[in-house]
Amino acid sequence: MDDRRVDVDSLVSEVSEGAVVVDAEVMEGYRHDWARDPEAGTPVAVVRARGTADVSATLRWAHARGVPVVPRGAGSGLSGGATAVDGGIVLSTELMRGISVDPVTRTAVVQPGLLNAEVKRAVATEGLWYPPDPSSFEMCSIGGNAATNAGGLCCVKYGVTTDYVLGMEVVLADGTVVRLGGPRLKDSAGLSLTKLFVGSEGTLGVITELTLRLLPAQPPQATVVAGFATLTAATDAILAITSALRPAMLEFMDTVAINAVEDEMRMGLDRTAAALLVARSDAPGEFAALEARTIVGLCEKAGATEVFHTSDAAEGEAFTAARRFAIPAVERIGPLLLEDVGVPLPRLGELITGVAAIGERNDVLVSVIAHAGDGNTHPLIVHDPTDPDNTARAHRAFGEIMDLAITLGGTITGEHGVGRLKKAWLPDQVGPEVMALTRRIKDALDPTGILNPGAVL
Amino acid sequence: MDDRRVDVDSLVSEVSEGAVVVDAEVMEGYRHDWARDPEAGTPVAVVRARGTADVSATLRWAHARGVPVVPRGAGSGLSGGATAVDGGIVLSTELMRGISVDPVTRTAVVQPGLLNAEVKRAVATEGLWYPPDPSSFEMCSIGGNAATNAGGLCCVKYGVTTDYVLGMEVVLADGTVVRLGGPRLKDSAGLSLTKLFVGSEGTLGVITELTLRLLPAQPPQATVVAGFATLTAATDAILAITSALRPAMLEFMDTVAINAVEDEMRMGLDRTAAALLVARSDAPGEFAALEARTIVGLCEKAGATEVFHTSDAAEGEAFTAARRFAIPAVERIGPLLLEDVGVPLPRLGELITGVAAIGERNDVLVSVIAHAGDGNTHPLIVHDPTDPDNTARAHRAFGEIMDLAITLGGTITGEHGVGRLKKAWLPDQVGPEVMALTRRIKDALDPTGILNPGAVL
Repeated sequence: MDDRRVDVDSLVSEVSEGAVVVDAEVMEGYRHDWARDPEAGTPVAVVRARGTADVSATLRWAHARGVPVVPRGAGSGLSGGATAVDGGIVLSTELMRGISVDPVTRTAVVQPGLLNAEVKRAVATEGLWYPPDPSSFEMCSIGGNAATNAGGLCCVKYGVTTDYVLGMEVVLADGTVVRLGGPRLKDSAGLSLTKLFVGSEGTLGVITELTLRLLPAQPPQATVVAGFATLTAATDAILAITSALRPAMLEFMDTVAINAVEDEMRMGLDRTAAALLVARSDAPGEFAALEARTIVGLCEKAGATEVFHTSDAAEGEAFTAARRFAIPAVERIGPLLLEDVGVPLPRLGELITGVAAIGERNDVLVSVIAHAGDGNTHPLIVHDPTDPDNTARAHRAFGEIMDLAITLGGTITGEHGVGRLKKAWLPDQVGPEVMALTRRIKDALDPTGILNPGAVL
Repeated sequence: MDDRRVDVDSLVSEVSEGAVVVDAEVMEGYRHDWARDPEAGTPVAVVRARGTADVSATLRWAHARGVPVVPRGAGSGLSGGATAVDGGIVLSTELMRGISVDPVTRTAVVQPGLLNAEVKRAVATEGLWYPPDPSSFEMCSIGGNAATNAGGLCCVKYGVTTDYVLGMEVVLADGTVVRLGGPRLKDSAGLSLTKLFVGSEGTLGVITELTLRLLPAQPPQATVVAGFATLTAATDAILAITSALRPAMLEFMDTVAINAVEDEMRMGLDRTAAALLVARSDAPGEFAALEARTIVGLCEKAGATEVFHTSDAAEGEAFTAARRFAIPAVERIGPLLLEDVGVPLPRLGELITGVAAIGERNDVLVSVIAHAGDGNTHPLIVHDPTDPDNTARAHRAFGEIMDLAITLGGTITGEHGVGRLKKAWLPDQVGPEVMALTRRIKDALDPTGILNPGAVL
């Protein structure tokens, strides 16, 4: 029995029975998130926390020993933010799944392990709605959503996760438990610490509870689907729509994605289109159909070849599902490097045509899907891991796409987070002064650097 | 010429011509904000920055010498956040007044000295709307709004300042200029530093530019005015309304405020009512009137003695103006200690009746007005500064109201900030762990403690 093993034994007695897992086969499932980082390390143990006390005890234990801790939600992250490190602990919140909903303050208090979809369903029983909706909402956790400041399809009208986090309980690096904010829409007492922890990707603390702001149930939506013969016509339509009204959703798929989805779903999408937009309005009553007709007119004016609109909920949902299905559909062509770059909306056309040029130049297939209404795109780089040359070109394209986004005044990640995959590009986006500022805050909150080392910074 | 004076001379050459003011009479106007703290110090100089370079140079100069710097917007703060300190610099951003509006991304880039009302007017020319609306919107600056995370009347539906700040330029304690965020609704790249500076009350840096998220122009509103014979009936109505729909405004005045306003404005308000609610709906088209009728029904059901509703814009605005005028109207009775406590909505009734009891117990007149829909109240404590006993009782009531808010799970400040007036109560609200965390961040960002010393911490 080596020293490490003794150490882990001393952790077992600090936390709930059965919380510490050292079985190699079980631990294997906790080494990666969806980024599948080939350089993932091997943890000495996985802690499946039963509650805040387990999280606190684990961090206190790790802090005293300088053991790295990688916090983990559902493991659905796409930037390697939950990649295990050698000799560290993976601290999973997946079993912390409580929720209580207060319909009067329109808030919910949730534990981090609950899936986004489970939060949505629980609040829906009270006639309420939690808007943020990552495409992975059926398998991503609300804690991970807060850690990455996750977005989704509704953000163009309803904002991102941080806009819905009013308070939290968070455990600091040394195991100290703090409560921040609460069920109050307005609170100017002290620094905005709640918001600092949102999007901190497990580098500043581990969120053990969230107080979420809710909205009344979303009204029925009208849906518009429009095909375009050119990328430019599609991006012209996007700007025309967002300038005229606030769509509840405004999504983009290029021809590769359209065909990949059509291969699987046989919906009758126009395979010859260069781009497809799916837009929705949730304006009340007949205003939804009215906004949909305005969107139809703007698409036609921008040169749409085919435009369809419906107020039928199931039909509208089918097109939204088609858009959500685009990533797995393109993945059937081959393994993906999944990008998440965003730009100010007027630069969206340059980003989309620039990404196509990067694909051609590097001789790799790149499909672009986008939350077009807020300028957040997901270029999907198809590559062949068995072909080293192809893989090298794919990785070069991956970097060039981030470089392009930065050049266009954009961001290397709109909603997935920096994690480990993108940290080499973060300084290029934010500059040395912001990196230094980030480092000062990190050092102040996690002086021994045990929290998610190697992520973001 | 003493050493201090030499020092100030060395600052003059670092900033724009005329930026440094040492005239005692002019400086007198920069010693206080609206909190009129009698313990305000005397600055060695006021710097009226012409741009970011002046802010940076002033901080670099002050940092090198350990000279305190109190950042100042329009000086309309109510918590003493911009109270001058002896031997320090008051750094005013009032002359930094640029704005540019981008209707495609629906964002505005503004300098901090612009007044909130000027931002609203500038974006309105593009058919856009900046929602946050402190009652002081005609004289408070957008920089001060960001520094305090200011609220207003619209927050019940539209949130607070932080919900509209997408990015900023901020100057750190040592003069370093950093740019954070930008015109992107989604950005998960690195820590959420933008949000950390919002609400930091000049203790972490000086904001020199803001990128604001805008909405399309607010639709016409329908307005409901309802009088109640008891406080309980009014708070019952508030909970019924917020549970049923999302009003665009839901304001409360007690009988003291009603009568004070009626004395000045002669609007025909019911002087016998214990409380008055003013609610508005901005739902599109005929839905505004529909929501107004729902609100009327809920008020009647809760026992309203008189309910009036209108879709006439001028009439509705008159009632909103009456509510906004409540503070100056009550001030005609005597000087005010102005409170800003908030509670989770279900505790609002207990807060309002508890404040009345505190007034009685201390034998001071306390009028309560409130942004009722989000649980944020402004108890107005009328006192007589020439009567030391009365003043002592008023200050005791001031503290007891904050104690009550904390006991009810609330906040000592919903929208005004902690400043210097409320800092003694902050530890009671947030606890020693959060104070220690706050101190760690403050020390990391302002190690020599020159930024707004004595405020918040």
